[in-house]
Amino acid sequence: MSKRDIVKPSILPGFMELLPKDQLVFDEMKNTIEKNYRKHGFLPIDTPVLEKKEVLLAKGGGETEKQVYELERGHTEMAMRFDLTVPLARYVAMHFPDLNFPFRRYHIGKVYRGERNQKGRFREFYQCDIDIIGNGKLALTNDGEIPAVIADTFKDLGFEAFTIHINNRKILNGFYGSLGIKDTVSVLRTVDKLDKIGPDKVKEELLDLGLAEDGAQRILDFIGISGTNQEIIQALRDLKIDNETFTRGLEELQEVLSYARAFGVGEDHLAVDLSIARGLDYYTGTVYETILDDYPEIGSICSGGRYENLAEHYTNQPLPGVGISIGLSRLYYQLEEAGLLKDYQTQLMDLLLIPMDDCIEETVALLGRLRQEGVQASLYGEKGKMGKKFKYADQEGYPYVLVVGPDELKHQTFTLRNMVTGQEEALKEDQIPDFLKGARKN
Amino acid sequence: MSKRDIVKPSILPGFMELLPKDQLVFDEMKNTIEKNYRKHGFLPIDTPVLEKKEVLLAKGGGETEKQVYELERGHTEMAMRFDLTVPLARYVAMHFPDLNFPFRRYHIGKVYRGERNQKGRFREFYQCDIDIIGNGKLALTNDGEIPAVIADTFKDLGFEAFTIHINNRKILNGFYGSLGIKDTVSVLRTVDKLDKIGPDKVKEELLDLGLAEDGAQRILDFIGISGTNQEIIQALRDLKIDNETFTRGLEELQEVLSYARAFGVGEDHLAVDLSIARGLDYYTGTVYETILDDYPEIGSICSGGRYENLAEHYTNQPLPGVGISIGLSRLYYQLEEAGLLKDYQTQLMDLLLIPMDDCIEETVALLGRLRQEGVQASLYGEKGKMGKKFKYADQEGYPYVLVVGPDELKHQTFTLRNMVTGQEEALKEDQIPDFLKGARKN
Repeated sequence: MSKRDIVKPSILPGFMELLPKDQLVFDEMKNTIEKNYRKHGFLPIDTPVLEKKEVLLAKGGGETEKQVYELERGHTEMAMRFDLTVPLARYVAMHFPDLNFPFRRYHIGKVYRGERNQKGRFREFYQCDIDIIGNGKLALTNDGEIPAVIADTFKDLGFEAFTIHINNRKILNGFYGSLGIKDTVSVLRTVDKLDKIGPDKVKEELLDLGLAEDGAQRILDFIGISGTNQEIIQALRDLKIDNETFTRGLEELQEVLSYARAFGVGEDHLAVDLSIARGLDYYTGTVYETILDDYPEIGSICSGGRYENLAEHYTNQPLPGVGISIGLSRLYYQLEEAGLLKDYQTQLMDLLLIPMDDCIEETVALLGRLRQEGVQASLYGEKGKMGKKFKYADQEGYPYVLVVGPDELKHQTFTLRNMVTGQEEALKEDQIPDFLKGARKN
Repeated sequence: MSKRDIVKPSILPGFMELLPKDQLVFDEMKNTIEKNYRKHGFLPIDTPVLEKKEVLLAKGGGETEKQVYELERGHTEMAMRFDLTVPLARYVAMHFPDLNFPFRRYHIGKVYRGERNQKGRFREFYQCDIDIIGNGKLALTNDGEIPAVIADTFKDLGFEAFTIHINNRKILNGFYGSLGIKDTVSVLRTVDKLDKIGPDKVKEELLDLGLAEDGAQRILDFIGISGTNQEIIQALRDLKIDNETFTRGLEELQEVLSYARAFGVGEDHLAVDLSIARGLDYYTGTVYETILDDYPEIGSICSGGRYENLAEHYTNQPLPGVGISIGLSRLYYQLEEAGLLKDYQTQLMDLLLIPMDDCIEETVALLGRLRQEGVQASLYGEKGKMGKKFKYADQEGYPYVLVVGPDELKHQTFTLRNMVTGQEEALKEDQIPDFLKGARKN
């Protein structure tokens, strides 16, 4: 082997890498999300990280394209996927004849964006997406089920205080349309600054955009609507806006809310919120954002909505859909920073077996039998002093240690030491599995 | 949105992409492997797919380097990982102070190789690796535990007839050293052709390599050794080779075999096999290959071994280890081709609820309650004819369908139709979960 110099082991900036104990927490979150996606009847897909550049960038334009990792081999131009939505569109268009609609898929995988390096933004991160795609049309019950998936998932992740903010893009488009505003995008962008610059400044900017005094005031009144879900819906009705899109949006919103309630989502987890719009040129109906009530500064931890046409760049088949995405790497990072992951239960192992010299084979055999009984146990087979072995057990978080020597084997009585309290428990072999099962529950 | 032309949806050649039903099988295999890795006390790590080129290619040379996908952004040269071993070496060297040794890690992830395009070879594929890394030294009990992980994993994957072939590189090096052969690599390469060209041709080639008649004959006798594990070991002893490395290798092999037996691996799953050598410049002790007895043509489905120094390119710290890898994408493909995945149980859903008009909300509420009781159920909320809805249930593999109409809701009696036999079962709501649980078991 040709010897080269030692290369300093390091990874690229902006890439997340965890120690095993943190990885266990991360994986536990990932598995919880997957379990809930499956429970709601979503099927897995797994697409290549590398795709043809012309396919991945068929839509083109936008900030995202600049961030795409591209590469070439021979004459093939390739790119790394930057989200899971474009691959889904390509997948559905490509496998269309083999899929059943509505097509419910989940996809948990890494995506890549060469973003400017900054704290809490990652260049490789996990997205956890679900989407329901209709062939030509898609019932609103699906929009109502999405909040149930969100609620079940975040409850299982250990959160009780979260709110799913719901809006409908048709309400926004209809409302601004009724004011004769064509450039909804600029107005929405201005309105979006409300929290930052206050209502007076917003009004000023709206007037700058060429709106009449009356129109600007109506917008301020509109975005100022608040109250319970019922109060907001009543206030929207009271606006008496004679616009078909608006009326349809209001109907849809009410229908989606009532389905969400029927799916068992508590009213305390649902908030109609006229301020959310999401991707301006993409969503066309229901939109969702999810906020941790006690940590609003984290921003939305699960967002999505209804779109008209998933795969227009790959097929003429109209494919409406509704979906959400959890940015897991970012969520993990933010919860970790906020100190919210400390109590996460990720105990993997129950027992470490430490054989004394000349007892190795019997200890291994005991380990094999305990594993058969479902005990999560390992062997520390290295030579060395007892202190080192107990330190290993401590650092790896083993709750119990069993030193196996000639006496234990002779009397077939095994003394398990609790690594927290130091307490000892003498057990027969067949008592060990139940004892550890009990200990695990506490 | 700027309309572009339709781009034909397709993926790069040599990349695997599955339909959801096949993906379920693939994921089931992946989860089974992970479950077994965890059961044996291995901890997860997850490293970036993209790394610094200078780090990933620190070892340099070889066929692999030519296959690496490289890319550049700004002044940063990057590469996609081509295995999980180099990232492990970098990880252990980089996080050395934060790890406890022996460090037991598993890693399941995608790796990338721009190989020549051919059937059954993939450019993106999953590897499922475990390794145990010692700090300075590592006990042989670990080499004995690896076959137990292999055996448990493949049993859980549904295989009974498989054999773990075990050898020790020290036996080979010692034997060839005792013949005064320096260039072991050329000799091993020739010997490797035994199955293809027969013993006479092998002998001819050995003579061409400059070996004496007597030496060549001794090699042929050596590789011809066969029998039970005990017979092979006795035959090796009977060679009476006076070489320290050979003697050490023979001792190690016997020790590893007895640990493996103590770990519960049946003798029928263990075969000493002097013909396997694995990576010629990498492994230094125990080596493993795993063969499906009824499908030897598939080749080894799980291989690995003991190495002296994991991370010599990143640290001066000696880090011996032992590990194995399952190439999951290739394994899946080969089992699929051999028709061995047909009976895989991947039933995800128990029941499809189809609401009649005006019963949607009650049906949704029923669905919510059934899910609370652990029933894997979904709603078909689309409008349309019954035939279409039942066809959907069929194609998605729902074993039972429940049409919810006014009568069902009035009498609170629900008729589940078995989608295979056509048989109907009238049940009260609280009987549904147990009924479906029972059906799942059959």
